[in-house]
Amino acid sequence: MLAEIITIGDELLIGQVIDTNSAFIAKQLNKIGVSVYQITSVQDDKEHILKALKDAESNVDVIILTGGLGPTKDDITKKTIAEYFGDTLVRNEAVLKNIEAIWSGHVSGLLLQVNKDQALVPSKAKVLMNRLGTAPGMWMEKGEKTFISLPGVPHEMQALVENEVIPKVKGKYNCPFILHKTLLVYGLGESALAERIEVWEDTLPKNIKLAYLPSLGKMRLRLSAKGFEEADLRINVDAEIAKVIPLIKNEFFGLEDEDGSVEVVIANRLTKIGKTLAMAESCTGGKIAEQFTSHPGASSYFKGGVVTYSTQSKINILGISKDLVEEHSVVSKEVVEAMAKNALDLFQSDFAVATTGNAGPSKGDSDAEIGTVHIAIATKNEVYSEKFMLGNQRVKVIDKAVNKALEMLLKEIFKN
Amino acid sequence: MLAEIITIGDELLIGQVIDTNSAFIAKQLNKIGVSVYQITSVQDDKEHILKALKDAESNVDVIILTGGLGPTKDDITKKTIAEYFGDTLVRNEAVLKNIEAIWSGHVSGLLLQVNKDQALVPSKAKVLMNRLGTAPGMWMEKGEKTFISLPGVPHEMQALVENEVIPKVKGKYNCPFILHKTLLVYGLGESALAERIEVWEDTLPKNIKLAYLPSLGKMRLRLSAKGFEEADLRINVDAEIAKVIPLIKNEFFGLEDEDGSVEVVIANRLTKIGKTLAMAESCTGGKIAEQFTSHPGASSYFKGGVVTYSTQSKINILGISKDLVEEHSVVSKEVVEAMAKNALDLFQSDFAVATTGNAGPSKGDSDAEIGTVHIAIATKNEVYSEKFMLGNQRVKVIDKAVNKALEMLLKEIFKN
Repeated sequence: MLAEIITIGDELLIGQVIDTNSAFIAKQLNKIGVSVYQITSVQDDKEHILKALKDAESNVDVIILTGGLGPTKDDITKKTIAEYFGDTLVRNEAVLKNIEAIWSGHVSGLLLQVNKDQALVPSKAKVLMNRLGTAPGMWMEKGEKTFISLPGVPHEMQALVENEVIPKVKGKYNCPFILHKTLLVYGLGESALAERIEVWEDTLPKNIKLAYLPSLGKMRLRLSAKGFEEADLRINVDAEIAKVIPLIKNEFFGLEDEDGSVEVVIANRLTKIGKTLAMAESCTGGKIAEQFTSHPGASSYFKGGVVTYSTQSKINILGISKDLVEEHSVVSKEVVEAMAKNALDLFQSDFAVATTGNAGPSKGDSDAEIGTVHIAIATKNEVYSEKFMLGNQRVKVIDKAVNKALEMLLKEIFKN
Repeated sequence: MLAEIITIGDELLIGQVIDTNSAFIAKQLNKIGVSVYQITSVQDDKEHILKALKDAESNVDVIILTGGLGPTKDDITKKTIAEYFGDTLVRNEAVLKNIEAIWSGHVSGLLLQVNKDQALVPSKAKVLMNRLGTAPGMWMEKGEKTFISLPGVPHEMQALVENEVIPKVKGKYNCPFILHKTLLVYGLGESALAERIEVWEDTLPKNIKLAYLPSLGKMRLRLSAKGFEEADLRINVDAEIAKVIPLIKNEFFGLEDEDGSVEVVIANRLTKIGKTLAMAESCTGGKIAEQFTSHPGASSYFKGGVVTYSTQSKINILGISKDLVEEHSVVSKEVVEAMAKNALDLFQSDFAVATTGNAGPSKGDSDAEIGTVHIAIATKNEVYSEKFMLGNQRVKVIDKAVNKALEMLLKEIFKN
């Protein structure tokens, strides 16, 4: 069972928009055992879309298109699909009713002709009703092959994938089961890790694939298996994980949550042990807080944070003493440890993490070299910090500092 | 001048990693007038990569591959390229020296065989030296066509694109100039906007393309033009912008910064008028602060923020009265306005924005319906707020709340 995802839109090809739709669709297809053979992003151009459809039809069973279904003039997908199927566009009354309902609920003003035209669909298409927007999804078949066209607006596309596409694909095809498990590893480079686990890796069964996923100071190791017997797959993959963990026992910090990452592992642990977290961020600018609060359930362990970007706010809000800042500079071990300690007190939390540094491109309230970041952890019993040099590219300095902070937090929380 | 980007890696096709590399490369190529014809993501599989190379060669002039060049066993790109060119891998001494230098600077321990093997490159390849990592970039030619292979680690890939690929492509090909300008529009849906500007749109010159980019409550309108005379393009595009602005004069909020977005327009305005910003976030969890601090120069206008996630922290840190919370609930007009006002005072800023709401999936410290978000703006003269219902999907509620907060801030700041 193979699928191809075709995303349509010039905005992707000029780099203005990052294609997040494909990753979402791929993840959902994977869960029901459909492998994505290829993801192809093409221009808003009829000939190019026709060519992409033809190529995809020769390679895979299911073709999913997204984008190019809005009401405006830059849309082209629908006409192109009709041409590909030698079909014509006809008005679908159910779609028109849905458009009218959405319009009357959200918009003051008359229904426009361009919106009415969204009710035109190829006569052979089964409509996938889009309750969140005016562009309908479409399901078309050609022998054993299925073509699915979805709007490009992410939340509309996502609802259609979850509610319509996945159940229908499962119903039509006999899908195998695909299992991924991902290990979080800290403190070993890619090649050192590879050498450490080489003997184990060489003995992996053929149906289990291993991948190394390094990213800004953290490493993920992914095992993937595929088959029709889910229980067997789980047993086999778990057996391999049980073999590899002893080889990396000081560097292994848990299995990544199915949809999550390090912060989810931390969050789950905090919830389990009934402890709370707070933070004081300077150079990371709220990004650590945002990592935690983007996941549901944060209110059970996350007390809050301060983004004390200016020196004055570190003094006023966190109660860092002016003398301490003047003596050691705002980017220092002493200041970051006071920030963590005071955040712990301010929010009455069990753990606190703090960051201060200079992410560049120019120097801020301190003379610290660009890329210097101090990160501290405070608990009820102790405060400690580490200093990092994280390069001179602003966005990367921030992202690496966030990763390092999460790594220190992970290690602290798993000590307890 | 056409290019294709081929990204290699199973992690893309199972949806574990979002392909941000392609957008970066596409943006850089666009700046020098190279249009990206297609972006193709393929599996770590030799036959599939060979097929993608062949297809790309028949469609475009420049083919850029990323991924699959690391030191571990899941790598395959280099061998496949050698096979495609009927070439063999040979040791490159300069690459080996670079690997040794990186190794001795960053790693304690002996150089491993897998790292030494990274110095193997096809004999016909020109090496693009990767100063940030051990996997070399490669430049190969076949007649007029150019094949470029880059590591998949984003910061290594980015440095090679900026320092090696772009200058070399410009040197080899006679590239046209591509100009994009993007207008930020708030308060009109896609179809209403289309109707409003229809007459203008129909008279656009053939070499200027228009695209509508709607996203969670904001809209961007992009004009793109291409030609060999940069000065003429700028004059023509600016003339069209001058024509369309009067048609949307109440909804137009500025041109998007080349690499930025709404928050950059706000940041530039604040810096220009010498005013400062602070924020108190509850349901947005630090994401508004993070939007501003991810861009350089934030310290000149951004005073800081608090993420008062728990009710207790709103009382302790922001000084919201307990009575106010009990009388009106923590998700209310009264509380969000007090948050904004108190953040303004706490950080001594000129503007403050505050959010409180329930992003779901379960109800938190209030009985407010999931999706309810109050957003307030405070200035030295006034405080006001709006209430929004933003649906029931957590991540979207947060993102929409961030967009709404930025929209309110934008309108407030451009009033002054």
